[in-house]
Amino acid sequence: VPLIDSPAPGLPGAWRAMGTRWPFVLVSLSVCACVCRAASPQEEEDSAMENIVTEKKAEESHRQDSADLLIFILLLTLTILTIWLFKHRRFRFLHETGLAMIYGLLVGVVLRYGIHMPRDGTSVMLNCHVNASPATVLVNVSGKFYEYTLKRVLSSSGNKVDDVSDNENEMLRKVTFDPEVFFNILLPPIIFHAGYSLKRRHFFRNMGSILAYAFLGTVVSCFIIGLLMYGTVTLMKHVGQLHGEFFFTDCLFFGAIVSATDPVTVLAIFHELQVEPDLYALLFGESVLNDAVAVVLSSSIVAYQPTGDNSHTFEGMALLKSFGMFLGIFSGSFALGVATGIVTFTKLRDFQLLETALFFLMSWSTFLLAEACGFTGVVAVLFCGITQAHYTYNNLSRESQDRTKQLFELLNFLAENFIFSYMGLTLFTFRNHVFNPMFIVGAFLAVFIGRAANIYPLSFLLNLGRRHKIRSNFQHMMMFAGLRGAMTFALAIRDTATYARQMMFSTTLLIVFFTVWICGGGTTQMLSCQRIRVGVDSDQDNSVSVIASVKCNSTKHESAWLFRIWYNFDHNYLKPILTHSGPPLTATLPPCCGPLARILTSPQAFENEGQLKDDDSDLILTDDINLAYGDITVNTDGSGVHTSSGAGFASGMSSEDLDRELTCGDNEVVMRGTLPFPFCNFWSKLSNLNAD
Amino acid sequence: VPLIDSPAPGLPGAWRAMGTRWPFVLVSLSVCACVCRAASPQEEEDSAMENIVTEKKAEESHRQDSADLLIFILLLTLTILTIWLFKHRRFRFLHETGLAMIYGLLVGVVLRYGIHMPRDGTSVMLNCHVNASPATVLVNVSGKFYEYTLKRVLSSSGNKVDDVSDNENEMLRKVTFDPEVFFNILLPPIIFHAGYSLKRRHFFRNMGSILAYAFLGTVVSCFIIGLLMYGTVTLMKHVGQLHGEFFFTDCLFFGAIVSATDPVTVLAIFHELQVEPDLYALLFGESVLNDAVAVVLSSSIVAYQPTGDNSHTFEGMALLKSFGMFLGIFSGSFALGVATGIVTFTKLRDFQLLETALFFLMSWSTFLLAEACGFTGVVAVLFCGITQAHYTYNNLSRESQDRTKQLFELLNFLAENFIFSYMGLTLFTFRNHVFNPMFIVGAFLAVFIGRAANIYPLSFLLNLGRRHKIRSNFQHMMMFAGLRGAMTFALAIRDTATYARQMMFSTTLLIVFFTVWICGGGTTQMLSCQRIRVGVDSDQDNSVSVIASVKCNSTKHESAWLFRIWYNFDHNYLKPILTHSGPPLTATLPPCCGPLARILTSPQAFENEGQLKDDDSDLILTDDINLAYGDITVNTDGSGVHTSSGAGFASGMSSEDLDRELTCGDNEVVMRGTLPFPFCNFWSKLSNLNAD
Repeated sequence: VPLIDSPAPGLPGAWRAMGTRWPFVLVSLSVCACVCRAASPQEEEDSAMENIVTEKKAEESHRQDSADLLIFILLLTLTILTIWLFKHRRFRFLHETGLAMIYGLLVGVVLRYGIHMPRDGTSVMLNCHVNASPATVLVNVSGKFYEYTLKRVLSSSGNKVDDVSDNENEMLRKVTFDPEVFFNILLPPIIFHAGYSLKRRHFFRNMGSILAYAFLGTVVSCFIIGLLMYGTVTLMKHVGQLHGEFFFTDCLFFGAIVSATDPVTVLAIFHELQVEPDLYALLFGESVLNDAVAVVLSSSIVAYQPTGDNSHTFEGMALLKSFGMFLGIFSGSFALGVATGIVTFTKLRDFQLLETALFFLMSWSTFLLAEACGFTGVVAVLFCGITQAHYTYNNLSRESQDRTKQLFELLNFLAENFIFSYMGLTLFTFRNHVFNPMFIVGAFLAVFIGRAANIYPLSFLLNLGRRHKIRSNFQHMMMFAGLRGAMTFALAIRDTATYARQMMFSTTLLIVFFTVWICGGGTTQMLSCQRIRVGVDSDQDNSVSVIASVKCNSTKHESAWLFRIWYNFDHNYLKPILTHSGPPLTATLPPCCGPLARILTSPQAFENEGQLKDDDSDLILTDDINLAYGDITVNTDGSGVHTSSGAGFASGMSSEDLDRELTCGDNEVVMRGTLPFPFCNFWSKLSNLNAD
Repeated sequence: VPLIDSPAPGLPGAWRAMGTRWPFVLVSLSVCACVCRAASPQEEEDSAMENIVTEKKAEESHRQDSADLLIFILLLTLTILTIWLFKHRRFRFLHETGLAMIYGLLVGVVLRYGIHMPRDGTSVMLNCHVNASPATVLVNVSGKFYEYTLKRVLSSSGNKVDDVSDNENEMLRKVTFDPEVFFNILLPPIIFHAGYSLKRRHFFRNMGSILAYAFLGTVVSCFIIGLLMYGTVTLMKHVGQLHGEFFFTDCLFFGAIVSATDPVTVLAIFHELQVEPDLYALLFGESVLNDAVAVVLSSSIVAYQPTGDNSHTFEGMALLKSFGMFLGIFSGSFALGVATGIVTFTKLRDFQLLETALFFLMSWSTFLLAEACGFTGVVAVLFCGITQAHYTYNNLSRESQDRTKQLFELLNFLAENFIFSYMGLTLFTFRNHVFNPMFIVGAFLAVFIGRAANIYPLSFLLNLGRRHKIRSNFQHMMMFAGLRGAMTFALAIRDTATYARQMMFSTTLLIVFFTVWICGGGTTQMLSCQRIRVGVDSDQDNSVSVIASVKCNSTKHESAWLFRIWYNFDHNYLKPILTHSGPPLTATLPPCCGPLARILTSPQAFENEGQLKDDDSDLILTDDINLAYGDITVNTDGSGVHTSSGAGFASGMSSEDLDRELTCGDNEVVMRGTLPFPFCNFWSKLSNLNAD
């Protein structure tokens, strides 16, 4: 068995320079190994001493791990303290994520250039000609057995071996996390929180546009960026700037990962400044769904493997398979998320701790279940969050509603800041960066053009169908707010084995930095430049002064037929079955289904029927119930059986009625509740008057 | 390089029987390796195909991991649902932890006997004669490089290799967690929660007794159990039942780990039934500090390594070193915990999310800092929790107080139930159990006697000094409530490399099961049998009817001089400096220190001075402030400078005054606040009258 491996013949030029060091390392190690082999018989007697040494070493390593993790914790602590200072002083030019990146960068610089730890030869090259890659390897080191577990597969040509052998700075290796950590631990709470905190009222109102931006827009953006990058890459090849393989699928993959927008910075500022809720809903909804689309898109592109030879040529079947996979994975994850979201139909109201724990566990198990089934956990978690917010939330006790919201808010905050500070750190600590100026310039241009090709044409098409147009200043703002963040980073770092992926990763980092700092920092300026109104607080506040600023007419858009059907179905059947709120089924089902309706309706629904629901102010549906109730009477007899004198009222409603209902729903929230129909009309007139 | 290793010559008899299989496995693997080596040149061309296979395999493994984790999540979910049913029906014979263990057991049985997965030869034996154990190993598998990381060191004699090679059931290996997970991830939130939710008023009142039980008692129990076990082991050796080495240090180690009591079950029932608060405080305080003492004790025993030969004989120096280590680690961890607890002097009241996040991170960094310094993180976290509850809690905004409490409550709940269900699981899935009937009987007896030797003599001694004696029924109850739980398990599973440790682990599991099910389940019966009063709700409720049931005299105990000095110092100086509550320093410091006092006192302290503090009902100190204020007047002039007309009142107070103060403090809480001294006397008289 030869202990020294010569570099693989296919080593690309760019790597040859960096790869010259590792054969020496291996030589020295093998020499060392030979020496040890010779010395080992003598050493066997004092195994007890060796035991102590090993224990000491393990303890030392544990201490080191704790210290490394401590660096991150202190980084986060520092970020929090600085954010507090910023918030206290009302600085808005730098968001917490931007700040976390800066601190991460600083620590990265210190780790890279400041600390020079002596290398301790912890990496050993073994040659073992087994064809299967075993999950566990037992190594017999002079009579002692060590168990090793498979961490990762390095690239087959061996050009990444120096990544491990070349550890002059042990510290750098220590602060490098397994990329899967981002996907399996840090992203799920962020995505779930996004789904759970979605402002459903405005989201459902703009659902058509949001879906268009998220699905069509992301696919368009992905392909445009992919094509542009392919052009760039071809140009680079001609100029001789490309030092490795870069296929069209790689370009498309790059397009997919940088199409995931994450305007967390912008939305935080929007929230603080109370920007118009429709713009907020469009941006937030787009960016949330965007992530899901981008994840599935990227995995479909990776799965695009033409059969036969490995020639990366176009093939219809493989494309179709990828497309089928996209649909399959997406709908599977969607169904799974919605299903578990609905299943969590808690009746544990009296025990808040159990309730919260169950909620948390169900959300997590959605992720795991999706992953175990081969779907995308992140997508499942997103839709689970949306469903749980829509149905389960109403079943929770008041305390659990607060608890779950606060819990996921905290998890989201910590995970997000961690990812962003890690991003800063990794710019200096990642050892295989490939910064290619031409590729970077091309990527920035492509990202800009891709975003424009997403927003402007789609907005034009959508405006044809929308009653309430997406104004041009909204479009500019959406164009500007296309920041790239956690999802883009997580997708990029997941696989950095090949030259193409490394170049993508480095470029992606720069794109994230640029958009978060420049676009994120300039949001306030952009808002005032585009003359977008701020201080519009239509959801949460119930002061009367606000009513005046919201035009009742401004919400008269997108009550498309599909939406109406779903809305009626959800309101009249799903809500009563799945939650304790909503009208009792006895009122919405035809009288013939009476007994069934009585079984399916929860007792609380009967109790809750008449009373005000203060805590559902951001739910479109609960708000609108009261409006719909304007023209039916519900009789309750002693036994709790309800009969509706206006059976099937929802299906019998005219389109105009629904329109009016949707129109007034916006003010309805502010008035908290149970005003009858004529009263609502009065309010809408009043606010129209005030607005004029 | 010989690829096949013969079993080590020193293999103990008991293992030889089980160890016969692994050489065959190694033979077959090496044959496989040879075949592969021959075949590898031909296989190189279709590396692309192999790539896909590897990717598929990685994906498959990821799916499997998700499914495994899902098992645990579903187990927890099931536990929660059953607990809810039990709580709903008011069953008290089985606590949630007992239930979690039962479900764990069931799943363990299914995994062990139900599922027979085909073994897939994932373990390969490599021989590599390097003397250092490398942290990373690169394996060249037919041209591809795989990175392996060191997972653990198997025992040097090779008798645990079959643990890995013998994987007929891959599933069993998958559901086995790294033991350090318990110590570094699951225990800290449990311990922190214990410290944070300590009922400080009763804790501080019984501090002397609690410290005696926790320190003296645990050490006594550890040594008694150790001695008894040494007797048992010696007997076993004579009878021929012992099949491996078992030193006196092993016996002492066993004594230390089973001395950590964890009456979570009992306390939950106590809380529900509202048992007398003094008994609650004694048990809770003892068990919390107990854990800390046991951890440090066990690590000191492990560190007891006589120099020179490895003969496990008694040696004065090593003992002294261990004792020094105990004191050093304990005081170091204590100081660190207290220090970071104090440092978290948050002023972020306006941003609850930041505040909560900071609180969480500081608590976590205490753990990491202690581990990085070589102290015991668990101990540091405990004292950090106590300190944060005592000082930091007062500085938090109301929302953050709720949030942090709820957060740690949830984490504690999840971690605890996870550990207990894992305990059930591991009874069947752990593959190196050594059940020795003689050892088990001896251990049960020793644990019983050790507990008795802790409680009864100490109570007798304490009663000599206590005004309010610990009654015999309290003593019996404390004896009965010595359950073993999470800490014992975590300490036992941490190292199961040797025969002695494996026997200890198996026996420990049985002790935990027995105590949690039998003692935990019999708590209600024991309470009524011992005629201990229930329904005494003196802390949280402020209904007047309760006052009558609490005798004012019953709290007249343990106002020892040490406690008084600390109390005065804390109340007059530490509280005002470290929190926003407490009397302003200008009132407690001598007038000459006026300017300094004004700087150190926070503005809120001046504002809060006169007002009621509803949320501090379980703090002895804030409650008593108002009593002490009865006979001094505080003048506030316009500039916010406070001058006390009765300067140095605390130091001038007579011992009897303090006694009276402590006596009445108990009722004080119920009355929420600011009654002057004479009024308190009236109340105490009234309650005396009612009690007679």
